[in-house]
Amino acid sequence: MIQVAVIGGSGYTGAVLAKLIASHPQLSLSGLYVSEASQDQGKPLSSLYPELLGLVDLALTPLTEGNLQAIGQQAQAVCLATEHQISAELAPQLLAQGLVVFDLSGGHRFEDAEVYPQFYGFEHPQPALLNEAVYGLAEWAPEAIAQAQLVAVPGCYPTASLLALKPLAQAGLIANGSLPVINAVSGVSGAGRKASQTTSFCNVSLTPYGVLGHRHQPEIETQLGHDVVFTPHLGAFKRGILATITVALADGVNDQDLAEAYGQYEGSDKVQLLPAGQWPKVDDVAGTDRCLLAWKRDEQRQILVVASAIDNLMKGAASQALQCILIRFNLGGAQ
Amino acid sequence: MIQVAVIGGSGYTGAVLAKLIASHPQLSLSGLYVSEASQDQGKPLSSLYPELLGLVDLALTPLTEGNLQAIGQQAQAVCLATEHQISAELAPQLLAQGLVVFDLSGGHRFEDAEVYPQFYGFEHPQPALLNEAVYGLAEWAPEAIAQAQLVAVPGCYPTASLLALKPLAQAGLIANGSLPVINAVSGVSGAGRKASQTTSFCNVSLTPYGVLGHRHQPEIETQLGHDVVFTPHLGAFKRGILATITVALADGVNDQDLAEAYGQYEGSDKVQLLPAGQWPKVDDVAGTDRCLLAWKRDEQRQILVVASAIDNLMKGAASQALQCILIRFNLGGAQ
Amino acid sequence: MIQVAVIGGSGYTGAVLAKLIASHPQLSLSGLYVSEASQDQGKPLSSLYPELLGLVDLALTPLTEGNLQAIGQQAQAVCLATEHQISAELAPQLLAQGLVVFDLSGGHRFEDAEVYPQFYGFEHPQPALLNEAVYGLAEWAPEAIAQAQLVAVPGCYPTASLLALKPLAQAGLIANGSLPVINAVSGVSGAGRKASQTTSFCNVSLTPYGVLGHRHQPEIETQLGHDVVFTPHLGAFKRGILATITVALADGVNDQDLAEAYGQYEGSDKVQLLPAGQWPKVDDVAGTDRCLLAWKRDEQRQILVVASAIDNLMKGAASQALQCILIRFNLGGAQ
Amino acid sequence: MIQVAVIGGSGYTGAVLAKLIASHPQLSLSGLYVSEASQDQGKPLSSLYPELLGLVDLALTPLTEGNLQAIGQQAQAVCLATEHQISAELAPQLLAQGLVVFDLSGGHRFEDAEVYPQFYGFEHPQPALLNEAVYGLAEWAPEAIAQAQLVAVPGCYPTASLLALKPLAQAGLIANGSLPVINAVSGVSGAGRKASQTTSFCNVSLTPYGVLGHRHQPEIETQLGHDVVFTPHLGAFKRGILATITVALADGVNDQDLAEAYGQYEGSDKVQLLPAGQWPKVDDVAGTDRCLLAWKRDEQRQILVVASAIDNLMKGAASQALQCILIRFNLGGAQ
Repeated sequence: MIQVAVIGGSGYTGAVLAKLIASHPQLSLSGLYVSEASQDQGKPLSSLYPELLGLVDLALTPLTEGNLQAIGQQAQAVCLATEHQISAELAPQLLAQGLVVFDLSGGHRFEDAEVYPQFYGFEHPQPALLNEAVYGLAEWAPEAIAQAQLVAVPGCYPTASLLALKPLAQAGLIANGSLPVINAVSGVSGAGRKASQTTSFCNVSLTPYGVLGHRHQPEIETQLGHDVVFTPHLGAFKRGILATITVALADGVNDQDLAEAYGQYEGSDKVQLLPAGQWPKVDDVAGTDRCLLAWKRDEQRQILVVASAIDNLMKGAASQALQCILIRFNLGGAQ
Repeated sequence: MIQVAVIGGSGYTGAVLAKLIASHPQLSLSGLYVSEASQDQGKPLSSLYPELLGLVDLALTPLTEGNLQAIGQQAQAVCLATEHQISAELAPQLLAQGLVVFDLSGGHRFEDAEVYPQFYGFEHPQPALLNEAVYGLAEWAPEAIAQAQLVAVPGCYPTASLLALKPLAQAGLIANGSLPVINAVSGVSGAGRKASQTTSFCNVSLTPYGVLGHRHQPEIETQLGHDVVFTPHLGAFKRGILATITVALADGVNDQDLAEAYGQYEGSDKVQLLPAGQWPKVDDVAGTDRCLLAWKRDEQRQILVVASAIDNLMKGAASQALQCILIRFNLGGAQ
Repeated sequence: MIQVAVIGGSGYTGAVLAKLIASHPQLSLSGLYVSEASQDQGKPLSSLYPELLGLVDLALTPLTEGNLQAIGQQAQAVCLATEHQISAELAPQLLAQGLVVFDLSGGHRFEDAEVYPQFYGFEHPQPALLNEAVYGLAEWAPEAIAQAQLVAVPGCYPTASLLALKPLAQAGLIANGSLPVINAVSGVSGAGRKASQTTSFCNVSLTPYGVLGHRHQPEIETQLGHDVVFTPHLGAFKRGILATITVALADGVNDQDLAEAYGQYEGSDKVQLLPAGQWPKVDDVAGTDRCLLAWKRDEQRQILVVASAIDNLMKGAASQALQCILIRFNLGGAQ
Repeated sequence: MIQVAVIGGSGYTGAVLAKLIASHPQLSLSGLYVSEASQDQGKPLSSLYPELLGLVDLALTPLTEGNLQAIGQQAQAVCLATEHQISAELAPQLLAQGLVVFDLSGGHRFEDAEVYPQFYGFEHPQPALLNEAVYGLAEWAPEAIAQAQLVAVPGCYPTASLLALKPLAQAGLIANGSLPVINAVSGVSGAGRKASQTTSFCNVSLTPYGVLGHRHQPEIETQLGHDVVFTPHLGAFKRGILATITVALADGVNDQDLAEAYGQYEGSDKVQLLPAGQWPKVDDVAGTDRCLLAWKRDEQRQILVVASAIDNLMKGAASQALQCILIRFNLGGAQ
C-alpha cells in the first residue's frame, strides 16, 4: 500500500483525486489538507461532497507548518491540487521530505521560467526545479514518469489537445509553418469550486474566453514543438472537454499515414479511436478516465479535422495523476 | 406616456422590468437606480446584460439621497426591485413624493407586521403602511390595484400557487381541515444575481430547500385563507416555476364544479387552461407573461392535482408589476 | 464466477447492467440478447454506447428460439431488461432451464394479476408465477431474495418512494387514513432509449405526466400497505430521481421516533441519511448505486417532509438487480 | 396589411415565423399549411406549441392541390419552411400566382445547380429559377431583396458565419490562399422537430457532425467568395448558434482596419459589436433577432479570432425571413 496525501483536497480536482486514491486497492489516502485560512478545515470531505458519504469521510486538515512537515512521515507521495503559485512554493519542502510530488497545477509544467510572470502572474520561486519536473502525459512519458521525483500533471486542455496532436507531430504529418487551430469547449467544473459571476448558473452559456492569450496555449506549443492557435470556450455542462482541431497536413500524407500515427494507441484502455464515422460526445467520457479520438481528412485540401474528448477532472487532472502515481510506483494497473 | 423609475435596476428582476417598461408604447423608463455601494453605478444596463444592447442602454444611477428625492420630479411611478428591508425603508419617502409605488419585494405583502421578524429577519419600519398596500395579484384585485398608491407585487411561488388555488377556495371546493400540498420547482434565476455556492453552475441540481419554513408559505396561506404545505425546490434551469398541487376536495365536488371554478380565467390572455390531457411544461412559459394551468381529479379519492407554470421573473415578478402599472394608470393593455 | 445473461441488452437499463456485471470480479457476462427484430443484433454493445468501448464489447445476440433455449447451458442467472409483457412470457422458459431470473420489468411485481390489464395493458400469461416472485427491494427482503428463483426488481419510482416510506409504515408512524403525497421527478433516461417526441431534446422541460394513473402508484401502495397519491414528472436531466414526500404523522410521533425508524439504514453503504439541514440533490446520486434520504418534521401540524434521491438506472434498476444477484448467490459484496 | 402564408407551419421554423407574422402590426397570417400526409392537419398550431395559445390558434391546413392554387387569392407573400426539395418543387407554382416567395430551405440558395445532387441529394427541378433567386442576407442585399420575387433566406450557420466574415472579405483583409476555420455549435432545434435518436434527450451532448462535408460549407464559400473549413457541432441546448472563426489576416492589416470593416454595422439594431473584451454567449441571443459579434487580433501572428452568435430559428431563419419581407414590401420596420 502506497500512502498518498492530497493538498488542496476541498476543490473539485482534489475531491475527485481523493476518491480515486481511497478506492484504489494499492493506494491509501493518508491525509487531506486545506489552507489554514479555509473555512472547510475539520469537516469531512463528504460534508462538502455528499456523493462521497461513506467513501471519503476523512476530515480536511489545515496545512499548518507542523502538519506540512509531518506529511513525509506518513506518506510516500503527495498530490498538489493547489493554486499554481502555492504548488511552486510547497514543492521544495515536500521533495526535501523524500516525497514523490505530483503537481496538478501549472506550477511546474514549463522548463522556461519566463512563462510564469507572463502567463501566470508570478515569478517562479524555484526555477531550478523546472528542469527536474517531468511532464506527466502518461501515454507519452512512462519511462520518465517512472523515474521522476516531481511530476507536472498536464492541464486539461493540453491533455485533450496533445493526445490528438502528438501522434501527428511525431510522425511529421503537420505542414511546416502551418498553425493548427484548436477550438475547445470545457464544462464549468474546469473553472474550479469558487463561486463567481462567471460560473453562476444563470450566466453560463456557450462562449469563448481567454481568446489568443490563454496559458494553455504555450503549454500545448511547448509539449508539441509546434505553434498552434488555441481558443477555449465555456460550455453549459458540468464535466468534460471537447477539442476540435483543424490541421493542415504535409504534402503527400494519406489516410494510411494517419491511421498508423494514431495506431500507437492500439491496446490502450485510456485512449481510444472511435470507428470511422463516429465522433466523440462529451458525455461519452464524462466521469471516465478515457480519451476518445476521431479524425477525418479532406483529401482535396489536405486538411485534417481531429476531435478529442476527455473528462476535464479525470483524464484532464485526477485520473491522469493516478496513472502517473501507478507508473511511478510500478503498481498493477500501470501501463 | 407614464414615466416609471426602477430602483434595484441591476438585478435580474429589475433588468427584465426595465426592458418591459422601455419597450411599452405607453410607458417611459425615467431612471434606473442602484445602491450607492454598487460597483455597477454609471454603467449602461446593457453592459451587464448584453441582450439589452440597443434596448436599454440607460446608465445605472447611484441612489444618493439627492437622487432619491428627485425621482418624483420626473416619474409618476416607481418600482422597487430591492431587498425586502430596503423596500420597506424606501417606500414612505417615495409615497411622500406622490409616486405610485410598486414593490416587487416582500416588504409590503403582509398586513401582519409580525411576519417580518419571523420570516424576513427584520422589524418592519412602517407597519402602518402594511394596511394600505394592495396585494397585486393582477387577475384577482384589479379594482383595488386601480386605486392603490402602494402595490405589493406578489412573490413568484405565491403567484403560481394562488392562480391555481384561489378559484378552488373562492368556490369552497377544498375539503375543510385538509392541507393542500404544494410542490414547486423554480429555475435558478429565482435566487437572484449574486454569486454564491448554492447557485454555482456545478452545484445546481434538483433539490428541495427551505423545507417547512419558506417565507412564501405564509404569503400563500394569508392570500388563500387556507393553510398549505409548501415545499420549494431548485431546478437546473434558468427561468420558470412549476407548482404541482395536491388538494383534497370537499365532498360532492365534481368535474363540472372544477371547470366552472377555473372558467373564470376564460378570455384572459395571461392565465390559460390547457386542453384536458395536456400538462404545462416550464419551457412553455419561460420568458412569457403567461400562466398555464391544468388539472385532473381522482374521483374515487376526491383528490385533485392541479399544475401551474409561470416564468418566475415575468408573471412571478416583472410582467405582473407591468400588469399592475397598466391597471393603475388605466392604460390600453390593462385587463 | 457466476455466469449471468442479459436479455434486452441494448436499452439503457440493459447496458448499465451489462457493464456492472462485466466489471464485477465474481460475475461474468455470458450473453447479451436482443429481439430477433432488432436492428442492433450482431453489433458490439460498445458500438451503441461508446463509453463502453473496451469494457463491454460483447455483441448483441438475437433471441432466437434456439438461443433462448441454450441460455441455461452457459448461465446460472438471467436478467430481463425487456418490456413487461415480454418478461412475463419469457420467465417460464427460463425458470424451466433452472436459471434464477431477475426481472427488471414490471412483469412480476404484483401478486394480483388484475393489475396487469388495468395498468399494463395485457392479461398476465402466467398468473401462477406472481405468487412465487419475490419483490427485490434489496434492503427490505434479503432473506426472501436469497431463496428466490424469480426476483421482481422494483421500479425506479417505487424504489425511491419505498426506501423513504417503509421505515415509517413499519413503525406505524403514518396517520391512519391519511394519504402521503409523493411528488417525484425523473431524468429522461427513465423513458427508455426509443426516440419519441416526448423525449426529443427540444420538447423536454419539467412537467407532470401520468397524473393520478401511473402504474407505479399501485406498486408503491401494494408494497407499502398504505394508499398514496403519486405524481411523476419528467425533468430536463439525463439521470436520477428525486421524490419529495409529504406525510401526515400519527399523533404523538416525535423526531426521536423518526430518527429510530430511519436508523435501520445505519451501516448501509447503499441508503444513507444526510446530516440534518442537508437535502439530497439529484446529481449527488446520478451514476451511483446510492439512495440519499433527508427528512424534517413540522411539529405544529405533525407533517413530515422526506426527500429521497436515487439514480433511476442504477438503484432504480441495474444496481439494485446487481444487489439482488449478489444476495441470491451469496457473493462477497452482498449485504 | 400584407397577407402572408406559411407552408410547413408545423415545424420549429414555421411556428416561430407564424408567431412573428401574426404579431407584426403590418402583417397578417393568411394561412398555415402542412403536407397532406401530416397527422397535424386540422389542429390549431397552439395545440402543438402551447406557448402559442391565444397567439397563433390558426389551424394547420393540408396543402392539397386546391389549397395550393388558392394561396395567391388571399396572400401577397408566401414563406416556405419546407424540405429543400419540396421548396424547389413548390416555388414555380407560387411564383406563377404572383406571390413573392421567401424560401427558408436550401432549395434556392445556389446559382450552381450541380450543388444539389452533391450536397442535397436531388436534381434541382427548376435550375432556371436559381439565377433569379436573391440570397436574403438582409444586411448585405437590401436593394436586391427589395426587388426580388424569390428570396432564398440564408441557412443558420451561413448567417452567423457570413455576418462575421463578409466585412473582412469585402475589405480584402483575409490572407490570400488561407483557409478561415469556422467552428460552430448549434442548439438542437437546428435539427428540426422530427424525433430521432440523434436528438433524443439522453443522446445529446457536445459533438462534431457533418465534418468536412456539411452543405453549409459551399453556401458560405459561395457567398463569401473564399474557401473555408467549416465544422458544425451539436450542443446540449435548445436555441442558438455560436460560430468561432479563426482567420489568417493579410499582411499589414491592423486593428483600425478591422474596426472600420466591422464599423459598417454601426447603427444596425440587428447586428451588434460587443465592447472590447466581451464575447458573445449563446443565451444573449437566444430567442432574439440579433447577431452579436466580437473579435481580437494576435498581432504577432496576424491571426484574427471573431465570434458570432445568433438564434438559429430567428436570425438564422424566421426573423431573417421577416426582415426580408419587411424590406420587400417597404414596411416600417425595414432597414
